[in-house]
Amino acid sequence: MQRYKIKISYDGTDYSGWQVQPDRVTIQQVIENAIKKITGQVVKIHGSGRTDNGVHAVAQIAHFDIETQMLPKALLRAVNCIINPDIRIISISKVSQAFHARKSAKSKEYRYFIWNGDQVTPFLYRYRTLIRQPLDVAAMKKAARQLIGRHDFSAFTANPNREVESTVRSLGMLKVTRRGQEITISASSNGFLYKMVRSLAGFLIRVGEGAVKPETATEVLNSQIRTARVPTAPAKGLFLWHVKY
Amino acid sequence: MQRYKIKISYDGTDYSGWQVQPDRVTIQQVIENAIKKITGQVVKIHGSGRTDNGVHAVAQIAHFDIETQMLPKALLRAVNCIINPDIRIISISKVSQAFHARKSAKSKEYRYFIWNGDQVTPFLYRYRTLIRQPLDVAAMKKAARQLIGRHDFSAFTANPNREVESTVRSLGMLKVTRRGQEITISASSNGFLYKMVRSLAGFLIRVGEGAVKPETATEVLNSQIRTARVPTAPAKGLFLWHVKY
Repeated sequence: MQRYKIKISYDGTDYSGWQVQPDRVTIQQVIENAIKKITGQVVKIHGSGRTDNGVHAVAQIAHFDIETQMLPKALLRAVNCIINPDIRIISISKVSQAFHARKSAKSKEYRYFIWNGDQVTPFLYRYRTLIRQPLDVAAMKKAARQLIGRHDFSAFTANPNREVESTVRSLGMLKVTRRGQEITISASSNGFLYKMVRSLAGFLIRVGEGAVKPETATEVLNSQIRTARVPTAPAKGLFLWHVKY
Repeated sequence: MQRYKIKISYDGTDYSGWQVQPDRVTIQQVIENAIKKITGQVVKIHGSGRTDNGVHAVAQIAHFDIETQMLPKALLRAVNCIINPDIRIISISKVSQAFHARKSAKSKEYRYFIWNGDQVTPFLYRYRTLIRQPLDVAAMKKAARQLIGRHDFSAFTANPNREVESTVRSLGMLKVTRRGQEITISASSNGFLYKMVRSLAGFLIRVGEGAVKPETATEVLNSQIRTARVPTAPAKGLFLWHVKY
């Protein structure tokens, strides 16, 4: 039995997220099917975490075990040959059984991309959330700073009851930057709640629009209640950017 | 009657090129239909030139006449609202009847993009031609230099007999540059023959692969005969980049 670690990029537009679901086409399933075709073995791929319907990844990490001894590069090439070009295995390596894509991960970084202008070019529209109203990035930065650290993030998850253990998380980074018409929200943590990054982005966008004051960030956080003040930003702007081990 | 000039960006992947054709979805037709829906008038859009099936444009220029007096910006917004996001009108302005998108054009620039690596990311595969074998850019530059200037380009068009007047063209620029794994071929002329840029790119790729020597460029040019030495590079790598007036 050999364990392989793979790094995967994908355009999530046409997929029902990462995780295998009945009657849906998912990233995990596409790769599992390809490996089965090539090796003849039924494999289960373990990702560093799920990404939702329509969310992209620059560098998702996953592992799987197969019995066949194959040159990693040959396996990578074979898989990439039979899957659509909107999913690519970027790199592959043999790892020990001690490595686990989810459990060994130290932290994850997501980036959320907003196009703050009149229109998105045809070459980027799948990857940017369009906000025409000029956003106040200084206010967004101010709100973001209040959310960094170890808190109960119940107010920033789509379903707090889904968490079995706790809704307390450590947000190591929450950064807002502007470069021309592009605004990027970068967030890193050793564990995110369900739809947490899109909830943070949704809230920061409202702050940028002037709909809520940046000072309310702490208040919303302390309320520990998810309300309409925190919308979930669209999936298309979100990328799983980096997993740290 | 008011003439409007528009600048259009499009991802040509899902379209049968620029020009209206029966039973095909083309860029020109999509925009004409949208303007008809908005103004109630049947308009004919005149582009600076055609682009083929699958070819993209960063800045195609076109003009049309309508009787309705509409604020240019309102017309732009309305059109962009009802067409798919893979076509965008980037800018619009009122122009005099003296302006003609094709006839007034002084020169056009196309860019052809090659990804010279193992694989293209899911975010770029629609816009890059993948060539895995490392290309010799110095050889490509050397070949390109021989093709610049006023020549009979019969050997670099898909159908020389299609031209009514002459196959002599002035190639003002033919430049090859590399930036990491990306190789760009930029070509400008006051008039290109049918599939000329993709033929030039196809030939330069063969030179880069070492299949033909750069010195043969002049010989191929002088032969004035299109043969298998000059393949047509895939449409997906080609962008209409700029039209100069």
